[in-house]
Amino acid sequence: MPVARTSLPDLAERLLAGDKRALGRAISLVEDDDPEGWALVRELYPRTGNAAVVGITGPPGAGKSTLLAALVGHARARDREVAVLSVDPSSPFTQGALLGDRIRLVDHYLDPHVFIRSMASRGSLGGLSEATLQAALLMDAAGKDDVFIETVGVGQAEVDVVDHADTVVLVLMPGSGDSIQAIKAGVMEIPDVIVVNKADHAGADATVREIRAALTLGPPRERDVPIVRTRARSGEGVDELVERIAEHRAWLIGEGLLEERRRRNLAGEVIGLAAARLRRRLERSLADDPSVVELLDEVAARRVDPASAAEQLLERQS
Amino acid sequence: MPVARTSLPDLAERLLAGDKRALGRAISLVEDDDPEGWALVRELYPRTGNAAVVGITGPPGAGKSTLLAALVGHARARDREVAVLSVDPSSPFTQGALLGDRIRLVDHYLDPHVFIRSMASRGSLGGLSEATLQAALLMDAAGKDDVFIETVGVGQAEVDVVDHADTVVLVLMPGSGDSIQAIKAGVMEIPDVIVVNKADHAGADATVREIRAALTLGPPRERDVPIVRTRARSGEGVDELVERIAEHRAWLIGEGLLEERRRRNLAGEVIGLAAARLRRRLERSLADDPSVVELLDEVAARRVDPASAAEQLLERQS
Repeated sequence: MPVARTSLPDLAERLLAGDKRALGRAISLVEDDDPEGWALVRELYPRTGNAAVVGITGPPGAGKSTLLAALVGHARARDREVAVLSVDPSSPFTQGALLGDRIRLVDHYLDPHVFIRSMASRGSLGGLSEATLQAALLMDAAGKDDVFIETVGVGQAEVDVVDHADTVVLVLMPGSGDSIQAIKAGVMEIPDVIVVNKADHAGADATVREIRAALTLGPPRERDVPIVRTRARSGEGVDELVERIAEHRAWLIGEGLLEERRRRNLAGEVIGLAAARLRRRLERSLADDPSVVELLDEVAARRVDPASAAEQLLERQS
Repeated sequence: MPVARTSLPDLAERLLAGDKRALGRAISLVEDDDPEGWALVRELYPRTGNAAVVGITGPPGAGKSTLLAALVGHARARDREVAVLSVDPSSPFTQGALLGDRIRLVDHYLDPHVFIRSMASRGSLGGLSEATLQAALLMDAAGKDDVFIETVGVGQAEVDVVDHADTVVLVLMPGSGDSIQAIKAGVMEIPDVIVVNKADHAGADATVREIRAALTLGPPRERDVPIVRTRARSGEGVDELVERIAEHRAWLIGEGLLEERRRRNLAGEVIGLAAARLRRRLERSLADDPSVVELLDEVAARRVDPASAAEQLLERQS
């Protein structure tokens, strides 16, 4: 492996200089769970923490990618370096369903100051969340001013994927009854900014009212959650959204909460990484380790209970 | 602890005899993560595997609990022993929002052949999923013919909670656009039976059509997913739902798939249990262990990267 070893510092250097291809290569390494990728993040980590990281989440079809394209355009108009990480937990056979959305980012593909990357989940959300974080750190180290992490989902696990963000934006649309119910029931964590996209569609007013009602149910918050109406395709409302995101960031900094939030996010991520790694090790052992297969046979035969089997697995990992 | 020790076999015996109070006490033990609870499940595990376990999932407000009350009534009419486990991941302050649903099960509270239990999540879904499985096993050992596990949620993690089930029923309603989009995009796993509840509401036909369209996008399945229209409050469609659930079970058994499915579920659960336990241990160490706090300080100061910190944590667990 001496060739790979000597190329690592070179890759790091090119990445720090903002080289798009180096950044792409580095992200592939962490996505493939290549030890070189982890070594790279380890080396570059002290150079991170400068980017404003914005997470965009919401149900499929709400128009997140169109909105993202508009946000990228905005940032570029202010001459900011931008990276977009689209996390797509859909199964391989339905990629087409989301492609329409993704395509709207194409305008920015040729801009040397915009880096766009998709990451598809084939495994557990834990593993994906792990790779997402590493990729975001690499983008940050590469000198991006704005890092947008987009994730498709309607549950808590999907919201967790954007937990690395300084600001979390939830994008809904008229018809997002399930997500609003989830907020109302306290099943989904409250984001920092809520967008009602497709605001020209019937029912947008009702949707805004329902969201407002859902937000009043929770405990008193340090800060009201702004609701922004947008029409991402026409660009309507995007200025306001940019402003609301900036206000949230200014508030975090002004109150001295940015470091606190990042510390909390990082603690969650370290634990999440550890649990995801253990889970992956165990999943591998299911395929490779005859003694693990035997243990599961005993569980299936109702001779060893699942919790005892789990304990045995944990002990063997030691 | 000699008193507790001698009471354990006694508790097991009463539980096996179908004593409701013993079952309630046993579930409290696993919910409180009491070692006695785990010991009990260990002892009773060989006596499990007889119950038909049905998972009911879907967004809040879809009417799952009303439907459950109807299913329980049906089972009781056939003289079956029934247990219901309601898993509620909502935050403490919004309990009221769901109470309306829960109350409909009250009719069955006084029936000695029906055991109803709610479990609220205060921590991670992993931990909740862990306790859910143990509780379901205890219900199974207590001689219940039907065990219904109900979970509130709109994402994959919530669907995972019902992974212990032989048959998974997804309950939607007109307005469940987000959930349908999630199926369409391949973000949510396909259940065994889909219910459109509140089928008298406007838009029910459109919802059924959308679900049908979403189902055609996936890969060919071994079995078509039936869509049942219900009005849980009036009882309309419940007969058909009972029939569809029974058909799914008969199919699993006829094709020799029940054991395979249970084996797969159990494997996932053993790994899930191990990962959840590790995660909890790590979370505790965040509060208790000064060296872990110090490690996280280093991460926050960008001196140790998250993945290296995770590795260090995993090594320390050994």
